[in-house]
Amino acid sequence: MSVSLPRKELFDIPEGVIYLDGNSLGPLPSAVPGRIADVVNAQWGTQLIRAWNQCHWMEQPGRVGDRVAQLIGAVAGSVMMGDTLSIKVFQALAASLKMRPERRVILSDSGNFPSDLYVAEGLIDTIGKDYELRVVDPEAVEQAIDESVAVVMLTQVDYRSGRMHDMDRITKLTQAAGAVSLWDLAHSAGAVPLNLAACQCEFAVGCTYKYLNGGPGAPAFIYVRPDLVDSAQPALSGWMGHDSPFAFEQAYRPATSIERMRVGTPPVIQMSALEAALDVWNDVDMNELRVASINLSERFIAEVERCCPALTLASPRDATVRGSQVSFAFEHGYAAMQALIAEGVIGDFRAPDIMRFGFTPLYLDEADVVAAVDILQEILETERWAAPRFQVAQSVT
Amino acid sequence: MSVSLPRKELFDIPEGVIYLDGNSLGPLPSAVPGRIADVVNAQWGTQLIRAWNQCHWMEQPGRVGDRVAQLIGAVAGSVMMGDTLSIKVFQALAASLKMRPERRVILSDSGNFPSDLYVAEGLIDTIGKDYELRVVDPEAVEQAIDESVAVVMLTQVDYRSGRMHDMDRITKLTQAAGAVSLWDLAHSAGAVPLNLAACQCEFAVGCTYKYLNGGPGAPAFIYVRPDLVDSAQPALSGWMGHDSPFAFEQAYRPATSIERMRVGTPPVIQMSALEAALDVWNDVDMNELRVASINLSERFIAEVERCCPALTLASPRDATVRGSQVSFAFEHGYAAMQALIAEGVIGDFRAPDIMRFGFTPLYLDEADVVAAVDILQEILETERWAAPRFQVAQSVT
Repeated sequence: MSVSLPRKELFDIPEGVIYLDGNSLGPLPSAVPGRIADVVNAQWGTQLIRAWNQCHWMEQPGRVGDRVAQLIGAVAGSVMMGDTLSIKVFQALAASLKMRPERRVILSDSGNFPSDLYVAEGLIDTIGKDYELRVVDPEAVEQAIDESVAVVMLTQVDYRSGRMHDMDRITKLTQAAGAVSLWDLAHSAGAVPLNLAACQCEFAVGCTYKYLNGGPGAPAFIYVRPDLVDSAQPALSGWMGHDSPFAFEQAYRPATSIERMRVGTPPVIQMSALEAALDVWNDVDMNELRVASINLSERFIAEVERCCPALTLASPRDATVRGSQVSFAFEHGYAAMQALIAEGVIGDFRAPDIMRFGFTPLYLDEADVVAAVDILQEILETERWAAPRFQVAQSVT
Repeated sequence: MSVSLPRKELFDIPEGVIYLDGNSLGPLPSAVPGRIADVVNAQWGTQLIRAWNQCHWMEQPGRVGDRVAQLIGAVAGSVMMGDTLSIKVFQALAASLKMRPERRVILSDSGNFPSDLYVAEGLIDTIGKDYELRVVDPEAVEQAIDESVAVVMLTQVDYRSGRMHDMDRITKLTQAAGAVSLWDLAHSAGAVPLNLAACQCEFAVGCTYKYLNGGPGAPAFIYVRPDLVDSAQPALSGWMGHDSPFAFEQAYRPATSIERMRVGTPPVIQMSALEAALDVWNDVDMNELRVASINLSERFIAEVERCCPALTLASPRDATVRGSQVSFAFEHGYAAMQALIAEGVIGDFRAPDIMRFGFTPLYLDEADVVAAVDILQEILETERWAAPRFQVAQSVT
């Protein structure tokens, strides 16, 4: 039986805040502070080195991975936690190239989060061979998949516009061309229903500090299709991915499971925050969440278009090809977002003119959406955004 | 003016525990729980996404790096925090190979921590060229440095025996042969005086959960010699190392500073534990700490050799070539260590027969050493280690 949404009582959201930036940094789940205090005081402080075994720290990355797996439609044993998303992109990309040694093209699109493209550049530079990172428009991806392509690396949901690729369709086209399929689910996991088992993509990666509310710098995840977990080459072959890390053998011998994607000593405190944060997903039906997300987004678009004519929708109008965020373009978007934040409506801004709003049915309802647009309307009508204090700063994904 | 040692009042060490495993996981500094609670509740919980700027999370890896720099004799702007030690080894090693494109040998020794060797294997495999990882005995390193060698990668203090390489001497020999010098300081930072500025090695890396007490999975550090910080190639080129991460440019353009060694979103909670933990080093004189460490180690060796004749010293007898740990070989070492731990004297065990004890003058004094040996002596004389419950398990570095 699924729970009803939202579940605001499971989050510590400050009084007076309407938080529309869970697509960038999820808010604090109420269970997290107590769990961290327990890990720090009762585990590290009291058990000291013994906690690695007695408190099951060593198994934590796989244990948490299995919980993330449930949220992305993957089977147990196919997801490992650790490092950052950029590191996991590197591993998945390197493993993909090894699977197609005769091919030389990494295909991606200009809607990908830049770090994924940077990581591809770094990998190519490290290999030092004649590899090519081919970046096309999101609309041109399908035509660009051909037999020169080793791996198609895409982010499902565009970080600026929320435009969503059809994972199943592109994966099929990719595999039909003999290439490997690698998906970045940074803006998908916890936002839209996913079924990696059905999709059959070889690799996927994602972060957990956005819709999964794991906290600032929470560990990333990597998914490897089950038939590949004992052959994918981890590239970043650290001791925690060794088949027997505590045998201290001189030669690397990768684990014959998803454990091989581990690298170094896991960040236990940070991982424990995530582990506690995942409890808010208990009995949440991802399809119901998606319906609620679309309802919130549609209501937001309708209200903004009715009340704020200066803003232009910069996300797909069709909800079926849009993730759980909505972007509007506005010439004075940066200042308007600062003014909104000053009044407790927290979204964010992406250059040059995008106001970005995330919709997270775990802790938002329609009343929040309406209240947010009321405040936005007032800011625009009074031109309160023009105040000098709203003109300068920077933003964070 | 330096403070007097130990500073037990700055740590939460459980009653009845003599902790001789700070070389594996440092104990909890008293300031950490409060700092973490503040970061979680007042920063993440209350400031939400705004905390990246308002609470200076974005600058934290460099800010903490500058503090670690002070402990290893490095100038500000030469140390960056992040990721794990294995990841930082990969970056430093890849950057080293790029600096000597015509050479093909990574030289290391069998005393290196296995993960460093595994990472070298993974890098070579990723590059896929005719590189060679040449692993020699620790005593044979100097002779093995020749003009085929691109980089000499060594851990200064051997994780099993505590045997310490002469960093300055080997770095000079390395550079005289035209090779790059990369030091792993996992068992050195916070344990022995270091002067990276004088040593002139190109790269160094280390972890912070051992002698720096940053907590389980605390972030690693990488040092780049100041004249190289704007040219070393980071290999793992993530967005946080970009010159302008929030411009979201499509092409990677590395920062012209140590910032280029950043990869992904930093683990703020884990980094904050480390930042608070570093306060215990305020006004500590590393040379005085070294004197205290040698006194504790020498006293331990003398007492064990007097009271526990079944144990054989497995560390250098000469304190000047030994780090801040002492190992003894004992046929029943595993069980004896379990029996010791059961009585509150916590060290650890390394196969096949090494009982390992770390000496950390920040929170240990000679009375602790004497008390520990008393308990060890009694366990050996009564053969209490032979109890079945002490015969099985695993251990962690």
